[in-house]
Amino acid sequence: MNLNQIAHINTGFTQKFGIPRQSGLVGEIGHIIFEPEFRNPTFIDGITDYDYLWLIWGFSKNKPLEGGTVRPPRLGGQKHMGVFATRAPFRPNNIGLSSVELLEVQDTEEYGQVLVVKGVDMLDGTPIYDIKPYIPYADAHPDARGGFTDELSKGAQVRVDFPEELLQKLPEKIRESAVEVLGQDPRAGYDRGKQRDFRLAYHGYDIVFLGKDGEITVTDVLKI
Amino acid sequence: MNLNQIAHINTGFTQKFGIPRQSGLVGEIGHIIFEPEFRNPTFIDGITDYDYLWLIWGFSKNKPLEGGTVRPPRLGGQKHMGVFATRAPFRPNNIGLSSVELLEVQDTEEYGQVLVVKGVDMLDGTPIYDIKPYIPYADAHPDARGGFTDELSKGAQVRVDFPEELLQKLPEKIRESAVEVLGQDPRAGYDRGKQRDFRLAYHGYDIVFLGKDGEITVTDVLKI
Repeated sequence: MNLNQIAHINTGFTQKFGIPRQSGLVGEIGHIIFEPEFRNPTFIDGITDYDYLWLIWGFSKNKPLEGGTVRPPRLGGQKHMGVFATRAPFRPNNIGLSSVELLEVQDTEEYGQVLVVKGVDMLDGTPIYDIKPYIPYADAHPDARGGFTDELSKGAQVRVDFPEELLQKLPEKIRESAVEVLGQDPRAGYDRGKQRDFRLAYHGYDIVFLGKDGEITVTDVLKI
Repeated sequence: MNLNQIAHINTGFTQKFGIPRQSGLVGEIGHIIFEPEFRNPTFIDGITDYDYLWLIWGFSKNKPLEGGTVRPPRLGGQKHMGVFATRAPFRPNNIGLSSVELLEVQDTEEYGQVLVVKGVDMLDGTPIYDIKPYIPYADAHPDARGGFTDELSKGAQVRVDFPEELLQKLPEKIRESAVEVLGQDPRAGYDRGKQRDFRLAYHGYDIVFLGKDGEITVTDVLKI
């Protein structure tokens, strides 16, 4: 089956490092820009009656997986799991699935109606192939077992030390989400024992931090 | 983006009429048969740690939608809604999304490991493009608003009168789900005022019923 791009999303993540591992973990805002042929407002008539949307999108920068297993970073990158038992970004078909909160529909002169959504876990420019409303009576299974993800939570994974004078270097509206992104611990499991510098590219800034076990200390903020 | 089929699902629905409008509404069982190159058990290693799976699949018998609106049957087929504000099966990209309960993994001689799932809303033979585990901490938003679907529920929509002697004509294991399928009221909204015969094709049987307002009476069961 061939899919045609209907939209793309603008986010603060210009590199893969630091992208939250699931949707909704971080209050990252995204703007969904429709392709010209989908800019007629009839396509989204009624959409504001829903709180959440499903985005079906493409892992556009990944090659499809060869073989059947992946090694989830959350398991330290050592343990093999079947790809269909994970949400790993390398898959036989590189389809991503995210539930995001619909904040508002913005009328813009340049792109027509733009959807502003929260909780995105996608690279800037990611192509979108379908948007469906979230229907809680069919989609919500809050008591379902979630495998190894049951030990994770929506809260922070690590303590973040972001000195105030460095935080001030970021535009005000992205400060909170920057701390949330760091709090999810962008480091792969096998990197967590290492005391070295990491760089998170976020909304046009490089956030430099020193990683330690259970703790992240921001040491510099640079405009890219 | 081009998607390659990884599996297909066998269900009791050989026609579109009667297919539940969302996953999970009816206890319909499906069997997911992997394509030969995906029959290596490593692909699903760990999958039984999850209660639910997401299936991303194709509305294989539908032409893509032209124009921006659809008319949901649940709204009587008269009211127009933007396609991205509905889960209508006619879409710019014909992608379906269902959460199904994983009951078991069966070892079969002919097809290798087969996933037995419950709550399917798919035509027999539907192609599947991806399988992802359901992760409740990211996917479950039980309090979300669901637009016009908020008035629907997982319960029956109509009373079903299925005379015992006719029910006995069905194999025992599909009797309960047949009543559930009818209870969802397969009729489109604009057909509900009409007193006429309908036919539901289900697991190789034609279930003939007389529809009235708020009630369905089964009048015959025929082996196809």
